[in-house]
Amino acid sequence: MLNIAVIGAGRIGHVHARTIAGHPQADLALVCDPVGDAAEKLASQYDGARSAKDAEEAFADPQVDAVIIGSPTPLHIPHLLAAAKAGKAVLCEKPIALDMADVEAARTDLDAISTPVMFGFNRRFDPSFAAVRAAVEAGRIGALEQLTVISRDPAAPPIEYVTVSGGIFRDMTIHDFDTARFFLGDITEVHAVGQNLDPAIEEAGDFDAAVVTLRAASGAVATIINNRHCASGYDQRLEASGHDGALFAENIRPTTVRLSNAEVTDAQEPYLDFFLERYADAYRLELSAFIEAVEAGTTPPTGIGDAVAALRLAEAATRSARTGEVVRLGS
Amino acid sequence: MLNIAVIGAGRIGHVHARTIAGHPQADLALVCDPVGDAAEKLASQYDGARSAKDAEEAFADPQVDAVIIGSPTPLHIPHLLAAAKAGKAVLCEKPIALDMADVEAARTDLDAISTPVMFGFNRRFDPSFAAVRAAVEAGRIGALEQLTVISRDPAAPPIEYVTVSGGIFRDMTIHDFDTARFFLGDITEVHAVGQNLDPAIEEAGDFDAAVVTLRAASGAVATIINNRHCASGYDQRLEASGHDGALFAENIRPTTVRLSNAEVTDAQEPYLDFFLERYADAYRLELSAFIEAVEAGTTPPTGIGDAVAALRLAEAATRSARTGEVVRLGS
Amino acid sequence: MLNIAVIGAGRIGHVHARTIAGHPQADLALVCDPVGDAAEKLASQYDGARSAKDAEEAFADPQVDAVIIGSPTPLHIPHLLAAAKAGKAVLCEKPIALDMADVEAARTDLDAISTPVMFGFNRRFDPSFAAVRAAVEAGRIGALEQLTVISRDPAAPPIEYVTVSGGIFRDMTIHDFDTARFFLGDITEVHAVGQNLDPAIEEAGDFDAAVVTLRAASGAVATIINNRHCASGYDQRLEASGHDGALFAENIRPTTVRLSNAEVTDAQEPYLDFFLERYADAYRLELSAFIEAVEAGTTPPTGIGDAVAALRLAEAATRSARTGEVVRLGS
Amino acid sequence: MLNIAVIGAGRIGHVHARTIAGHPQADLALVCDPVGDAAEKLASQYDGARSAKDAEEAFADPQVDAVIIGSPTPLHIPHLLAAAKAGKAVLCEKPIALDMADVEAARTDLDAISTPVMFGFNRRFDPSFAAVRAAVEAGRIGALEQLTVISRDPAAPPIEYVTVSGGIFRDMTIHDFDTARFFLGDITEVHAVGQNLDPAIEEAGDFDAAVVTLRAASGAVATIINNRHCASGYDQRLEASGHDGALFAENIRPTTVRLSNAEVTDAQEPYLDFFLERYADAYRLELSAFIEAVEAGTTPPTGIGDAVAALRLAEAATRSARTGEVVRLGS
Repeated sequence: MLNIAVIGAGRIGHVHARTIAGHPQADLALVCDPVGDAAEKLASQYDGARSAKDAEEAFADPQVDAVIIGSPTPLHIPHLLAAAKAGKAVLCEKPIALDMADVEAARTDLDAISTPVMFGFNRRFDPSFAAVRAAVEAGRIGALEQLTVISRDPAAPPIEYVTVSGGIFRDMTIHDFDTARFFLGDITEVHAVGQNLDPAIEEAGDFDAAVVTLRAASGAVATIINNRHCASGYDQRLEASGHDGALFAENIRPTTVRLSNAEVTDAQEPYLDFFLERYADAYRLELSAFIEAVEAGTTPPTGIGDAVAALRLAEAATRSARTGEVVRLGS
Repeated sequence: MLNIAVIGAGRIGHVHARTIAGHPQADLALVCDPVGDAAEKLASQYDGARSAKDAEEAFADPQVDAVIIGSPTPLHIPHLLAAAKAGKAVLCEKPIALDMADVEAARTDLDAISTPVMFGFNRRFDPSFAAVRAAVEAGRIGALEQLTVISRDPAAPPIEYVTVSGGIFRDMTIHDFDTARFFLGDITEVHAVGQNLDPAIEEAGDFDAAVVTLRAASGAVATIINNRHCASGYDQRLEASGHDGALFAENIRPTTVRLSNAEVTDAQEPYLDFFLERYADAYRLELSAFIEAVEAGTTPPTGIGDAVAALRLAEAATRSARTGEVVRLGS
Repeated sequence: MLNIAVIGAGRIGHVHARTIAGHPQADLALVCDPVGDAAEKLASQYDGARSAKDAEEAFADPQVDAVIIGSPTPLHIPHLLAAAKAGKAVLCEKPIALDMADVEAARTDLDAISTPVMFGFNRRFDPSFAAVRAAVEAGRIGALEQLTVISRDPAAPPIEYVTVSGGIFRDMTIHDFDTARFFLGDITEVHAVGQNLDPAIEEAGDFDAAVVTLRAASGAVATIINNRHCASGYDQRLEASGHDGALFAENIRPTTVRLSNAEVTDAQEPYLDFFLERYADAYRLELSAFIEAVEAGTTPPTGIGDAVAALRLAEAATRSARTGEVVRLGS
Repeated sequence: MLNIAVIGAGRIGHVHARTIAGHPQADLALVCDPVGDAAEKLASQYDGARSAKDAEEAFADPQVDAVIIGSPTPLHIPHLLAAAKAGKAVLCEKPIALDMADVEAARTDLDAISTPVMFGFNRRFDPSFAAVRAAVEAGRIGALEQLTVISRDPAAPPIEYVTVSGGIFRDMTIHDFDTARFFLGDITEVHAVGQNLDPAIEEAGDFDAAVVTLRAASGAVATIINNRHCASGYDQRLEASGHDGALFAENIRPTTVRLSNAEVTDAQEPYLDFFLERYADAYRLELSAFIEAVEAGTTPPTGIGDAVAALRLAEAATRSARTGEVVRLGS
């Protein structure tokens, strides 16, 4: 049984708290959040969970085996370093930072971490995406040639969030960058087109839709199609096309019900609304993988290297979308 | 090139005229219909087609190689016998008669026919149904165990038609009885439940929906689900379930378009509206099979035996639905 | 928090134990089973669960609020009566008995039960089936005309089980009879065709496939298609066809992955293998409904009347399949 | 009835000859091709069709109302100008030329054409693509934001064809460029990534797969994903995503049959193999639109402007793929 503290009682903190509470090998020990009574309110929902304002309490608590960092992005590196220094295993949310400069500044400390560190690229653990990846690896479609990732949120976050999010590529596409790396490995070239559909987001200095093309060292190409809103719900699909076939991971609906009438036939329901529902299994399996690695003393399936690589792609996409130029990544 | 006369300028006569006109190996020579200017109006739509009031003109015409009989059902046997006597090849619509007594009365003459005679069980020629049948025959799903045929018309015919149709089982289910025989061979037991959903059809003495269960000599069972109306169009599906797998023939829509929005996702269009559109390919392939048999001198793929067997099932189903008893068929 | 004892540590007992353990409002207090160490082995998997050989311990235990009866069918009525006499709320598995005579013999005692009793017709709680039912009730497809239930197990149970199961209609179709009643209400007429595909099951005196037609008092007709084996997994579908449209509940696969290659396109995975996986949500929601009714003091959604009605349909179907006659049910 | 000559008896010439022969308002008058007996062989398949080696015979023939130009691309402009000069209506295959310089050189002559000229962007006439376009225009999905076009051939053409084809963007993507313009109007920015999967095509100096991103003046973005081969057949899909919903045009199979067994469920057949089958309806409707415009004296739905715009996009994509830079298109 792993005793886990959750740092940050925001939306993602709620997801992790619930996932821990429902996991047979994990206990929610502590929730930390400095804002109002957020930590207390979240902790009170789970038997035996305590709360604190200061994240330091989690790092200092000898009964805490591991921490999940879901604090605001600028705190990810400080919390990660503090937790690791205290000997805790860490599962940290994406992105690692808003700026590669922050990563570079902490490079020496990051390199010195010896406790297990995993990054929350939950989509690697989605059963459908993982099954596609496994089938590709097993050679079911021959050499992978083209990957298409479609990722659209049901609705844009509040403007206040947009302004501190680091922009669509660091905040939203970061998952898809990791998915591209999960399937294709190293990326050598990035091209991004940013779109401004909602003027409020444009005024906030961000894009709300984008198409990104990534060329991999292998010669394969990934296309990522993002949109901050989608009328039908949380549109999360993936298509891996290889020399001998193709694999598709489709959207998920609450039930399998289809309706036919005089206007439509075999109409399905809107997609599951957002990440909590859509990726519930993925969060659970991500947590299982983390626990397993911590308990077995093995390297977690995603690490700082993956987090940095995804952030580097996000920065390249941001530059490409801003300048209209293709960005090449050095080795 | 086969010169063909069409007897009967009603709805099915139009279907056959159009199919002949578009067929590279057939010419529409003559249309016969005693009612008003029906024959003339239909013939005038096709270059080179003549019209006549009296079907005898077709039988007497030495330039006519074959006739397609689409006259009212009570005339099927008389027209069939006259055409055959005149040496014409015949493609006759279903059912062969409204009553087995009529078949029995003409048995000697029917047995004496030596020209090629085929019956219009067009669904055997539907590319999807035929592909399912071929895959079953090829052993793709192992021994066939259960067949489910769903057949719903978009809307009931006019009451005037209902009253002379011979009833739902002879008029509508007759196709599905042939489909059951096409897949399962000899049927030994019939059970039918008739439903009265529309009071006007009940007053006309008929059912407008039914569920029929057929046990085959092989041990397999077929279920036929019929309805005279269907909100989504012409609902024509089939499911063959075997020991090692199952095959499905799905409905057809005008295009492949799917719509997703806030209410529905991947919604398809209503089904093709009725038999003319839905079975256009089947009518064409049926005609090809007829022409091929006539020209090659081989036995057409469906014959009087099939027409009689389907009518016998229709009579059994009628009796079962009326009496509430299961009807067993002798050998 | 409801303290629940599970009577019977067989396959269904495992399902309920796991469902209770994972339910936020239920505690697994006790597992009872007289056979070997079955109870002990099952109880040992869950923290705080005790075990006993004798079911009486559950009935006598003041800390047990409710029992779930998953013992062999002949014990259902005795266990039900003993539990109710002890003041326990009861969730009892289907069928209530193997024979209506047993129900009649216990009629006075059954009628006198005053504690909450619910029967385990789990499919009413399947999210897809329940959504179809709710949409029908809401008038989404107009008057319900025809219901088709397809229910095929992945593989037949061992012959030893078959011989004590009461036959396919009491053991397997019983769920589908309840589904038919759930949608159509009172049934007035039953016709069943039994099939013998596997000689071993025929020798054991049972059918291994069947097609049942049920006429409802409303005029609607339900068709149930059963098979003890299905190559593609646990085939569980439902189609409700009404005057203004139709609703379909489709099979469930482990993931949404589709494969296309030179042989197949958009091929999905085999269905979830069996009831534990397929109806995991249904068991959970069934338990929630039970707990809710017990705690609120309301009548559970299914009761002895439903259990008796389903058994009566099973007996009628058995008789119909054996005699080849239609069975009419009195009011 | 329009008397039509087909210039060029290659693959596309065969498509047009067959389409004309089957069209109720068109007659195939003449086939011209200088190579061997190609023209004669093709013409001999159709009653009343003559053949000639020299295309001039078509232009000079007073009985020819219109010509369809399916000659090698470098001859498109010369044949187009000669036909127009002779007063013929023209349906010309894509691309208009291999090089914008050739268009520029003929600009004065092209501008002076006064006979009806249409270009063979057949996909605009595909019933599914056209239905999506019509639904977008009708506002069914709100403002169009992102268009995704997936277009993969079943297998690469012979290397000899590749070397004279003008490259993948002029030869294959040209259709998708027109589709993008059909949906999005003017394009302002082009980015292309070329892929080399088959070394033989790389040696021939071409790409065999590509991903192209197009930004439209409207702010919408189109993504085109191309591949010269696809294991499952001719992969032709389209997805239009708007503010209020999305529309999808899916692949087409020969039948609606689905197969389920122990390995796959609901598996469909491979896609229709290539353009002749997949776009048979589109070629027919394209011809109808051409005939209708010629006979009504209206402007054909596609013209030289569309052909030039598509070629300009192809050149921009070629340059982008070669240089790795984004290409901006002037007004």
